[in-house]
Amino acid sequence: MNRPQFIERMIEIIKRMPGVGPKMAERLSYYILKMSENEVNGLVNSILKARQIMKICSICYNLSEHDPCYICSDPARDRDIVCIVETPQDLIAVSKVKDYKGLYFVLGGALSPLDAAGPDDIRIDSLIKRLESDNISEVIIATDTDSKGEITAVYLGELIKKLGIKVTRIGYGLPIGGDIEYADEVTISRAIAGRKEM
Amino acid sequence: MNRPQFIERMIEIIKRMPGVGPKMAERLSYYILKMSENEVNGLVNSILKARQIMKICSICYNLSEHDPCYICSDPARDRDIVCIVETPQDLIAVSKVKDYKGLYFVLGGALSPLDAAGPDDIRIDSLIKRLESDNISEVIIATDTDSKGEITAVYLGELIKKLGIKVTRIGYGLPIGGDIEYADEVTISRAIAGRKEM
Repeated sequence: MNRPQFIERMIEIIKRMPGVGPKMAERLSYYILKMSENEVNGLVNSILKARQIMKICSICYNLSEHDPCYICSDPARDRDIVCIVETPQDLIAVSKVKDYKGLYFVLGGALSPLDAAGPDDIRIDSLIKRLESDNISEVIIATDTDSKGEITAVYLGELIKKLGIKVTRIGYGLPIGGDIEYADEVTISRAIAGRKEM
Repeated sequence: MNRPQFIERMIEIIKRMPGVGPKMAERLSYYILKMSENEVNGLVNSILKARQIMKICSICYNLSEHDPCYICSDPARDRDIVCIVETPQDLIAVSKVKDYKGLYFVLGGALSPLDAAGPDDIRIDSLIKRLESDNISEVIIATDTDSKGEITAVYLGELIKKLGIKVTRIGYGLPIGGDIEYADEVTISRAIAGRKEM
């Protein structure tokens, strides 16, 4: 005897999400079935509204309600320093650090020779174009410190140095093999303070 | 610099789900923001449709597209034996066992003195009414084997024996402290085969 089709379908879709196994998908589905009308509407509307409002910043590729985003359009920020991150989540993690006042660039991933993810799969062309046209004096590479992030950092370091721009790699304080997104503010703050020229 | 409001709202709602921590909620939210239009519609529609279609069986309290549910309305099942479970998920787990052909009753939880969840918080009244009116020869109590499930089993065992009905507790094979929902089919099958009269 199997589960009713309408529950199975929901589990099927939720199971595809990152970090959600079959049992977790089942739990979440039954939880959603037990939620009040109000709560379900809140959930569904927050999803639909977020998708509707969301824009991708044409300068840094951050997610925002506006284009340019709230960071790129903030006149108080240093416009000659750019921090490169892999994802919008990483950008949020770094942006919690009060001592960094520069701009950002979201790569949209990392190079990964094993998964055949090459330079065309992330936003390297857009990055280089931006660095060539804007007046940038320093680029901080804050990709993850796992192997993909490191490969990406080395690759970008070489490219950016050729443009005559100072390149630093986020360094001190970040545990090796770590994911920037999960680092706490103090660690990120120390990593930025201890950055080294590449 | 904080996260845009529309993302924050989504994280806030998803964070309330069982087993979902703040980081997981963040991951899922960004994943949903990156999903294709088609995928998001699939997700939202599966939630709304499931909620719309879903009925609670007035006999056993299982979730189903129909009332009575697909199990209670199945003429091939033994109508004189009832298996009591805590949740619809537990029912699905037990229903995968081919050698059990009886009916079910979903309690909707377990007794929990510590959380002040007493007999009125689960469907004990409805259960007793059903057992009194239907012609039931045996009740198998398949509540979880954690302390709440055990307390509930003992409590129900006493009540049901007074009705002159044979009561058995699912037994052999189930690890102590376990959650029925997570047990595999073989374990559940053995537990049913090795059930003991209470």
